[in-house]
Amino acid sequence: MHEQGSKGCLIIIGGNEDRKDERRILREVAREVRGGKLVLATVASRRPEGYFDDYQRAFSDLDLGDLVELYVEDRVEAGDRSKLSVLDDAAGIFFSGGDQLRITSQIGDTGIEAKVRALYERGGVVAGTSAGASVMSETMLVKGTSQITHRIGDLHMAPGLGLIRDVIIDQHFAERGRFGRLIGAVAHNPRVLGMGIDEDTAAIVRGDRIDVIGSGAVYVVDGTHVTHSNVAEGQSDCALALHDVRVHVLPDGNGYDLKERRPISPDN
Amino acid sequence: MHEQGSKGCLIIIGGNEDRKDERRILREVAREVRGGKLVLATVASRRPEGYFDDYQRAFSDLDLGDLVELYVEDRVEAGDRSKLSVLDDAAGIFFSGGDQLRITSQIGDTGIEAKVRALYERGGVVAGTSAGASVMSETMLVKGTSQITHRIGDLHMAPGLGLIRDVIIDQHFAERGRFGRLIGAVAHNPRVLGMGIDEDTAAIVRGDRIDVIGSGAVYVVDGTHVTHSNVAEGQSDCALALHDVRVHVLPDGNGYDLKERRPISPDN
Repeated sequence: MHEQGSKGCLIIIGGNEDRKDERRILREVAREVRGGKLVLATVASRRPEGYFDDYQRAFSDLDLGDLVELYVEDRVEAGDRSKLSVLDDAAGIFFSGGDQLRITSQIGDTGIEAKVRALYERGGVVAGTSAGASVMSETMLVKGTSQITHRIGDLHMAPGLGLIRDVIIDQHFAERGRFGRLIGAVAHNPRVLGMGIDEDTAAIVRGDRIDVIGSGAVYVVDGTHVTHSNVAEGQSDCALALHDVRVHVLPDGNGYDLKERRPISPDN
Repeated sequence: MHEQGSKGCLIIIGGNEDRKDERRILREVAREVRGGKLVLATVASRRPEGYFDDYQRAFSDLDLGDLVELYVEDRVEAGDRSKLSVLDDAAGIFFSGGDQLRITSQIGDTGIEAKVRALYERGGVVAGTSAGASVMSETMLVKGTSQITHRIGDLHMAPGLGLIRDVIIDQHFAERGRFGRLIGAVAHNPRVLGMGIDEDTAAIVRGDRIDVIGSGAVYVVDGTHVTHSNVAEGQSDCALALHDVRVHVLPDGNGYDLKERRPISPDN
């Protein structure tokens, strides 16, 4: 496991986080932003209308310095100086949901991506929910059937933003029955740790340490000790075989050490 | 792990087995019955009409000696000599789907249950699908929310028929997103192995060996090496924590050794 280099903080949310009541996760985002400016990137959505109002309401009494929207219609816009300057004095960015491929195809290798990376490296916050969560890994899950045992070949992956290394993220995890597809992704290369995040639940990454908050759980799928897999031999419609996968179920208060690949109990 | 004592064979099906086309699993049931008589026990259902016709059609060209229905309206009927005699010369029994509590509450500790056990012990076949699968374990899963991370306290278990020891069975597994609840059941007592069976998939148990057939997979959840669990401490609406669970994904051709608690690759 490589060390995660940045001084910043990732807040990776499994989608559908509480935006009305206790707002446990958004409160944590605001706390990390420390009264600074948060940029809401709605670029994952083809119809971003409503997202900003919704989050503005949710964050209204949570002591943000400022909340501003960043939307780009296409790649050309992602190089616009006016778009780029929004990120200059930001303390954090929050990617809302939609389609993870829209995020990477619109801002991948643009000035915006460089600014997001710079923000993270100088100690800023990068948060993302649903599609905005998936996009944080180096290789991201794009598509794959839920609620069925994973079929070899039925999994689409693509390069993500690469803010967290050697991890592949899935969201809406228990809610959409995605255990099969995450285990399938890990089978492709057990170097990569699977991280399945439930709705209204977040994995907060600071350096090599992950802390879990929210009402569900984070599932870590570790293929290090896998003894048998049929991923390379099987037909593409063939059901996955995988022996000796290690799984950790981590609810609020639990953590995970990415370097040691070990779960952390609430009392540690 | 205790040794499984019987000379018989269990065919534990995750529900919704193919009854029209290839009928891989029903073909295996018929093969094990070896031209003998198969009793279709529709007792799990409150409205058993149609089940018998459906299975009669499905088994029609599969070389069964005879297919007869066994239904009991209530516990009194479960002691009827005419009902009991149906099982005397049977080579196998097949429990169709419905409600597992109906099976155990109607025939538990009756003459029928004794005859099923005797059939199994003399080398007969006990098959069951969906509710008929759950009922085979000593402690069976009755109810528990699917598609959500398991909440401590949200799991109802009851004594089953006890044909397989130290195993707890769940069905419609990937299809209904039941990983959370099976892992929750295992957390209660890691002596018990979790066995989640997909639809159109069967675990065939002969002695200590399990073989998997069908289009999905059997998930074995082994809690032997669990290092942390909050089952006893947590509030009942609290999400489950469980560290170091071992999981095996076993599709068609894979197996499992119950005594050694080890998966078996297709080439063994």
